[in-house]
Amino acid sequence: MEVVQVLRMNGGLGETSYANNSLVQRKVISMTKPITEEAITQVYRSVDGISNRFCIAELGCSSGPNTLAVAAELITTVHQLSRSHGRQLPEFQILLNDLPGNDFNSIFHSLLPQFRAQLDQQMGSKSAPCFVYGVPGSFYGRLFAANSLHFVHSSYSLMWLSKVPEGVEKWNKEEIYIGSKSPAPAINVYYSQFRVDFHTFLKCRSEEVVGGGAMVLTILGRKSDNAAASKECCYIWELLALSLKEMVSEGAIDEEKLHSFNIPQYMPSPAEVRRSVEEEGSFAISRLDTSEIRWADCGSSCGGKDVAKCMRSVAEPMLVEHFGETIIDELFGKYERSLTDCMSKEEMKFINVTVSLIRRG
Amino acid sequence: MEVVQVLRMNGGLGETSYANNSLVQRKVISMTKPITEEAITQVYRSVDGISNRFCIAELGCSSGPNTLAVAAELITTVHQLSRSHGRQLPEFQILLNDLPGNDFNSIFHSLLPQFRAQLDQQMGSKSAPCFVYGVPGSFYGRLFAANSLHFVHSSYSLMWLSKVPEGVEKWNKEEIYIGSKSPAPAINVYYSQFRVDFHTFLKCRSEEVVGGGAMVLTILGRKSDNAAASKECCYIWELLALSLKEMVSEGAIDEEKLHSFNIPQYMPSPAEVRRSVEEEGSFAISRLDTSEIRWADCGSSCGGKDVAKCMRSVAEPMLVEHFGETIIDELFGKYERSLTDCMSKEEMKFINVTVSLIRRG
Repeated sequence: MEVVQVLRMNGGLGETSYANNSLVQRKVISMTKPITEEAITQVYRSVDGISNRFCIAELGCSSGPNTLAVAAELITTVHQLSRSHGRQLPEFQILLNDLPGNDFNSIFHSLLPQFRAQLDQQMGSKSAPCFVYGVPGSFYGRLFAANSLHFVHSSYSLMWLSKVPEGVEKWNKEEIYIGSKSPAPAINVYYSQFRVDFHTFLKCRSEEVVGGGAMVLTILGRKSDNAAASKECCYIWELLALSLKEMVSEGAIDEEKLHSFNIPQYMPSPAEVRRSVEEEGSFAISRLDTSEIRWADCGSSCGGKDVAKCMRSVAEPMLVEHFGETIIDELFGKYERSLTDCMSKEEMKFINVTVSLIRRG
Repeated sequence: MEVVQVLRMNGGLGETSYANNSLVQRKVISMTKPITEEAITQVYRSVDGISNRFCIAELGCSSGPNTLAVAAELITTVHQLSRSHGRQLPEFQILLNDLPGNDFNSIFHSLLPQFRAQLDQQMGSKSAPCFVYGVPGSFYGRLFAANSLHFVHSSYSLMWLSKVPEGVEKWNKEEIYIGSKSPAPAINVYYSQFRVDFHTFLKCRSEEVVGGGAMVLTILGRKSDNAAASKECCYIWELLALSLKEMVSEGAIDEEKLHSFNIPQYMPSPAEVRRSVEEEGSFAISRLDTSEIRWADCGSSCGGKDVAKCMRSVAEPMLVEHFGETIIDELFGKYERSLTDCMSKEEMKFINVTVSLIRRG
């Protein structure tokens, strides 16, 4: 599954699952491993009763090779910690969350047996029980019982907003996300929606995570304070907007249709993430880092074709919903040529913002 | 979905889900309602901290109209109890368990929105959070964290054994379940397998259910002490065995094939259930009842056609696995005629054994 699985969010776009590009995700998981290890060690040392039960939630788990990857890693780390502290290995609860349209059947039927076999092989007879549950629902609402979680992980999901920001189509006619032609009010409504959603997310999790529990969240974002910092975050969507505009000029797409199309996504800066966390107040920041992934890492050919394929998987359902099926092949043909051209001139990168949080109290 | 969803258990038969005939199940749920209400009231009154969190597991939940029916009923009862005790409504955790092949996607995508709408309508703004999880796995192993469950419900699932009893084909050539031609050793290995499996079930649940927590289990069974009490339990399979034998005599099925076919099921008596519970020792019996459902209740036409359809859904995957696809239509044609003939002569019934248990300590 070397494609990005799709999110079609609440903004009238239906739902399947949060994003999961296996290659990019695998790199992100590997890059953020020291941060998750540090966090889980902190939780292990500070939370009471952790030797009995260790409850881990993966938010936006999707249904691919990375669904259980972090859980497997965390269990290994806790296993090592238990051994070095001479304490018993806790029972693990792994709570896999994604939107109700996610393919939980395939997790349970295909991925889970592999995961269990891997655990058995790794831990042998010393393996403690590990209970894996599927938790359908949006993480912009309560998902788990109060004070029940010890560790929350989420990668490449929190840039998805709960909906397209209201009224954005009034301001953002020339773009489909924040772009060089977006006026200030368009940028503002996008950021406001992110603040509302991220606040809701933190509030809900604050009720669910025990004192001393941790969250490690990696969000597709940017470094710059400028939300329209094109090359850092917006450019991937600007190129798609350009391809759409080309089709408008060719008469294949109605201009009004393009003007009313916007993506329910926001790529925050570390400063914005910090501000939201501090405003909400339940969590303390123990780390806030950025990292980079090359567009070329979307696939093995390192070219525009892979990136187009990957973005098609993300955007196709939203585009079909709005513009219909017929434009898709031509659109992604144009998009691929733009991406290839752009990547031949400079090395383009995605920026990841990773924040490691501890529940106060 | 007025069919019995299929169980194909571990005995080399693959897996989908435990049985769920919607019409029969609906009747069973309604008949056992006073027992579940009594048990949930007992739990509400005796378990500490129950006003905060109420955790309910449905074992063998399948994916049909009855999947969430008991949970909905239990929430209503707890709502009434909370009101009459002037206590806050707890957060609910509903853990839906079935084999990994069960259609959890359809539960999450189709049944859950209805369930939530119904809860909202019923409770209005007073509704407490209700978290619904999918828990894939066999209940003949640990499924839940230690001391985490307050109430366990299971209906029409525990008569399914973890496998076809080993060696039974040596003794049970003429039958496909215990029948009038089964010699004592065949009956013994069937009962032994039930005792082993039911003991394992009780042992696993004893680790998961909190002291004072309850289980209400309804098992397809019998009243008689005689496991081969034909008309009470075995006859439904004996008639299928007769149809298979007819096809052997017609040359459509190889005799050896028939001799090696046995169903991984055991229909216990109340005395056998009591014995297992007492031997395992973790649970006290607060009720042990039997009830009856007419075969005719399998469908609206009250005839052999409905019963055949219902049994086909149960048995077809096992039969196809063993005998191949080609015999199925003819087999169920013959079976339907036998059932119709039998039902025209006397009123045939299924016997349900319902046991209500309290976790000691």
